[in-house]
Amino acid sequence: MQEFARRALAFRTQHGGTVAVTPKAEVNTPEELATHYTPGIGAVAQTIADDPSQAAKLTMKRDTVVVVSDGSAVLGLGNVGPAAALPVMEGKAMLFQAFAGINAVPLVVDTNSTEEFITLVQQIAPTFGGIHLEDIGAPACFVIEDRLAELLDVPVFHDDQHGTAIVVVAALINALRVTERSPETVRVLINGAGAAGVAIGRLLRTWGVTDIVMLDSKGIITTARENLPDYKQEFAVDGPAGGLADAMVGRDIFIGVSKPGLVTAEMIQSMAADPIVCALANPIPEIYPEEALAAGAAIVATGRSDFPNQINNALVFPGLFRGLLKHQVPKVTPEIKLAAAQAVASMVECPTGTNLLPDIFTSDVHEVVAQAVGEAV
Amino acid sequence: MQEFARRALAFRTQHGGTVAVTPKAEVNTPEELATHYTPGIGAVAQTIADDPSQAAKLTMKRDTVVVVSDGSAVLGLGNVGPAAALPVMEGKAMLFQAFAGINAVPLVVDTNSTEEFITLVQQIAPTFGGIHLEDIGAPACFVIEDRLAELLDVPVFHDDQHGTAIVVVAALINALRVTERSPETVRVLINGAGAAGVAIGRLLRTWGVTDIVMLDSKGIITTARENLPDYKQEFAVDGPAGGLADAMVGRDIFIGVSKPGLVTAEMIQSMAADPIVCALANPIPEIYPEEALAAGAAIVATGRSDFPNQINNALVFPGLFRGLLKHQVPKVTPEIKLAAAQAVASMVECPTGTNLLPDIFTSDVHEVVAQAVGEAV
Repeated sequence: MQEFARRALAFRTQHGGTVAVTPKAEVNTPEELATHYTPGIGAVAQTIADDPSQAAKLTMKRDTVVVVSDGSAVLGLGNVGPAAALPVMEGKAMLFQAFAGINAVPLVVDTNSTEEFITLVQQIAPTFGGIHLEDIGAPACFVIEDRLAELLDVPVFHDDQHGTAIVVVAALINALRVTERSPETVRVLINGAGAAGVAIGRLLRTWGVTDIVMLDSKGIITTARENLPDYKQEFAVDGPAGGLADAMVGRDIFIGVSKPGLVTAEMIQSMAADPIVCALANPIPEIYPEEALAAGAAIVATGRSDFPNQINNALVFPGLFRGLLKHQVPKVTPEIKLAAAQAVASMVECPTGTNLLPDIFTSDVHEVVAQAVGEAV
Repeated sequence: MQEFARRALAFRTQHGGTVAVTPKAEVNTPEELATHYTPGIGAVAQTIADDPSQAAKLTMKRDTVVVVSDGSAVLGLGNVGPAAALPVMEGKAMLFQAFAGINAVPLVVDTNSTEEFITLVQQIAPTFGGIHLEDIGAPACFVIEDRLAELLDVPVFHDDQHGTAIVVVAALINALRVTERSPETVRVLINGAGAAGVAIGRLLRTWGVTDIVMLDSKGIITTARENLPDYKQEFAVDGPAGGLADAMVGRDIFIGVSKPGLVTAEMIQSMAADPIVCALANPIPEIYPEEALAAGAAIVATGRSDFPNQINNALVFPGLFRGLLKHQVPKVTPEIKLAAAQAVASMVECPTGTNLLPDIFTSDVHEVVAQAVGEAV
């Protein structure tokens, strides 16, 4: 950790950001200048003025997304604002190009207003073929994504919700293969009712899971709770109130998108036989893999690259957007998300408890995800 | 013209836009991913959260500008809107990198409201080290630039105003050297009171020109005219009303930022001896060089690359922003603009009537302009 922090700061002290904007064409001669700038560009502008749909073919809109944030929920740091969010957007943009040949423009927005953020993204949308929302806190992220998806004719995707959800479901598809269970019968607990928790719950249902208990900071979300927002209401269960220890009893799958160290060995022991533990708090998980395995967990996944089964959104978003752009898909449907999860899972021919997910560098995962998106449309 | 249009459309049909967003760092290994994405990026975000001024050193803000337009005054095409403006922004972004190693993000904005445009640029400003306004019509462009310059701590530059003005003044500096006159004594006529005309008038005054007559579509702007907006009022002269033919009589310099073909041989003949004609309507100038020279013009400049003395903004904006970013200059002052004009003019050692400006490809013009900006701060 310390070493990577040191290296990141050293690189940036020397080079500034991690992305560049570079010409696709040469402009070394008067003829090249006349082609790619005036007067040649005038014909392109006129063609689009006559038929605006040509912009998706003749401009950067064809292969460019914006990675946009208000800095309200940055990594584990919280609401640190736009300036501090910028390096994260740059990192994401870098991965878009490295993994999928997509141009991604990092953009941070200085506003605390959900309405202003929506208006802004709507106004800049003619520049881009897709909108990748990043590091936006709940509940604003739900409103922003829903409204923009309605307003725009290009796909809108909040990675902290759906990127995480798709990789979690991909891991669980293979975890259930390994432990020979099916989504229809597993009992799931999701600890954390923010952006990731809610999106994971929704995609689990698309996959076929029916028994989900969700907890927020007040404990189990039950139908007896008052003033629940819609996105929690949809996961409210009948039954007694309770805390994490109560909720863990008899569950097959724990999914933590919450806080470091919340889960004890006793809680793992109280779960059903061969439990699956996704402890995704980062960098310090809800319980460390070693401890969870010692307490009887069959399989453990975390958000970290130094343990097996890393839930890494970068397995999904590059290939997903490549598929969306290639097929000019206007909306990211639940079916597309599930198809992406199945595509990621399919990349591991013989999954094991310590090998649920494909290697991000050596596999064709981005290409396979892109293809799955095309087939799911 | 037709040939360049054909080539531009062919390139874009194959490649889409003319710029890419590319990684500055390699991300081929888990270690590189951990450095440039999580967890390394977390340390960068935290450093900026603790001290926001670090963003100008550790992020793309250090070397990136936005090239932003509402599409309200695109080339000679008029108010064609954001989608049709996008290829022009891309062309500009391409030149920023090719000529000055600056990352420039093309951005088009779908709004007709001056206030909304200002708010939007203010909100995205934390991403960028400079704001390059492009193809925004008058009078909105004046309000937008003034307000943003007040609101932001990064430089704001409307190229259609000041890029044009700087190159025109550079050309005139050398034109007066060739014809042995001084700015204090020349009589100037500016035909066109839009973005470019007003900015040219202002920079001519900074340079030392005192005798300027400006015309808009109603003729000479006189103090007797009622309801003049401020930006025209500042050029209003005492004297009789009149049209272009009246105004040309006895002038040393004609600067047309208006419409094709407005100027006749008779008008040129009515000017003072050895007149200088800048016929900048594009692609068809107010009068063609051949006709103006035959009628007695000493020197002719146009906006076209196929005639001598092309007034090409690309001589200025790359180097100007390189200087602004390098020295973290918060405002573009009149002194900086004049210094840039003098720097461009200085690149031609022995100017002649057909060689007023440096070659954009073979000279060090961008480096010299950048240095002049640093010295003018």
